[in-house]
Amino acid sequence: MLSSPICERIGIRYPVFQGGMAWISDARLAAAVSEAGGLGIISGMRESAEALRQQIRLARSLTDKPFGVNIMLMHPLADAVAAVVAEEKVAVVTTGAGSPAKYMAQWQAAGITVIPVVASVAMAALAERAGAAAVIAEGQESGGHIGELTTMALVPQVASAVSIPVIAAGGIADGRGMAAAFMLGAVGVQMGTRFLIAEECGVHPAYKAAVLKASDVSTVTTGRRFGGNTCRCIKNQFSRSFLQKEYAPDATAESVADLGTGALRLAAVEGDAKNGCLLAGQISGMLHKEESAAEIVHSVCDEAEQLLKGAAKWVK
Amino acid sequence: MLSSPICERIGIRYPVFQGGMAWISDARLAAAVSEAGGLGIISGMRESAEALRQQIRLARSLTDKPFGVNIMLMHPLADAVAAVVAEEKVAVVTTGAGSPAKYMAQWQAAGITVIPVVASVAMAALAERAGAAAVIAEGQESGGHIGELTTMALVPQVASAVSIPVIAAGGIADGRGMAAAFMLGAVGVQMGTRFLIAEECGVHPAYKAAVLKASDVSTVTTGRRFGGNTCRCIKNQFSRSFLQKEYAPDATAESVADLGTGALRLAAVEGDAKNGCLLAGQISGMLHKEESAAEIVHSVCDEAEQLLKGAAKWVK
Repeated sequence: MLSSPICERIGIRYPVFQGGMAWISDARLAAAVSEAGGLGIISGMRESAEALRQQIRLARSLTDKPFGVNIMLMHPLADAVAAVVAEEKVAVVTTGAGSPAKYMAQWQAAGITVIPVVASVAMAALAERAGAAAVIAEGQESGGHIGELTTMALVPQVASAVSIPVIAAGGIADGRGMAAAFMLGAVGVQMGTRFLIAEECGVHPAYKAAVLKASDVSTVTTGRRFGGNTCRCIKNQFSRSFLQKEYAPDATAESVADLGTGALRLAAVEGDAKNGCLLAGQISGMLHKEESAAEIVHSVCDEAEQLLKGAAKWVK
Repeated sequence: MLSSPICERIGIRYPVFQGGMAWISDARLAAAVSEAGGLGIISGMRESAEALRQQIRLARSLTDKPFGVNIMLMHPLADAVAAVVAEEKVAVVTTGAGSPAKYMAQWQAAGITVIPVVASVAMAALAERAGAAAVIAEGQESGGHIGELTTMALVPQVASAVSIPVIAAGGIADGRGMAAAFMLGAVGVQMGTRFLIAEECGVHPAYKAAVLKASDVSTVTTGRRFGGNTCRCIKNQFSRSFLQKEYAPDATAESVADLGTGALRLAAVEGDAKNGCLLAGQISGMLHKEESAAEIVHSVCDEAEQLLKGAAKWVK
């Protein structure tokens, strides 16, 4: 068994978080991951805060184990969603896109363990000062909204800068990545893309098929030119068209601001793998089959355990 | 002692390569790294092929241990430089920017171990088919010319795709990165930026000072918009101006093609840290002091050994 301070803190068996993916991570996937001993995470950004409350209650009906909710702090619904997770006293809240300082007192009063996703040393230090229990240091090899630092460069620099536990995310899809994360100073991992293809993940089958078909060089980043909204997604008609418009001579921050609107829903819900936005990480090329959440958690942790137990073989 | 098949193959003590940095990696630095038990690498791209021959001979006068030469295959001098390394029978040639297939017979006849730098699974497979002894899988967190994949995503995918040894590069500056590389499937590491600040590195002190001052978020990438020539360097007047011109509405591949000409020499030789191009990796933020090449090799390997020997502690 892998041992990690984050497991004791949250009450989970394996130090494996399932990334909170908008339009994708729902109660069923989160409950399956939590039932398997990891930390399932529901995306908090839904049609309404009440829709999230229903998802939280649905997850509770499927598992009595702890699970989390991911909140995008820049989202118009953030205040309402922040209140719902406090009222529902979810075990863990992970946050993206900003500092959770504003909600910290409310969440801590509700007994919530707050774990911000950070993309730099400064963001990690800010999260620690705000009272975060841990941070998820996420590299730009991740799918979805990303920063600039990669996992290999980010995790050790964050681990040196803060004294709270660090969870590594980005570019991790198997036991090799998990064992590497521990060597870099992390005490757990978060995986998004690997759980996107889980059997219990309700994302449209066409989306899963595109991830399973992808190679190592199948992703691109949109939204980089004008900054602030860089996304990693699979090359398709949507991303080609986005990049063409983004890098057109007359493009402006305003002209590209809405290019992605509705595109993730189109891919995840409608299954339009051509015109939809297929957020996915650079490790898509490592994924070749659909498996249950339990198979994923166990195979990743088993492989990491074997590698860590056997690591001394490299020293004569 | 770390044990690795690449050490036996090349006849080095520690599986640590020093990156071949144009205008920076010379005979003195390479000999110091090789004397310390790693693999020193001279940049092959100099004023002339004969200038490289003098560097090779100088290195031989400083060490009787194996060292390497790095050759940029797209460089106008590549043919002449390829002939010199064969005539001088250097121990190792690392190659960048293309396939070394064209020179393979010549180099193998000279007893040279050929190790291409690759940025994707396809490039790694091509190198293996061409007869490479190993590959250096280099992530985009590296300084200098880079691809798109990160080390965390690239190394395991390359390790799964080829049966020759894999050396990891990009984002590695200490024993944590080295131990992580072994977990990902590599059997050695290459470090550029960490050796750039070595005492024996003759790069201008103003360049070293800029690297030592840099934080985790101090690098940017130039040359990405039109593709083919993406470089990671430290934010300064040069890179700001480059990016402004690169992303200007009327920019074209042609208009940006020569923006970097002379800028690396200006930084590395003249010490113009404002108008020169300071190639450096995302781990610059981890580097705080100048040390000898031997101190670097030993401290990185010692830390990696301790981590690998102690890795089993994570398994209860």
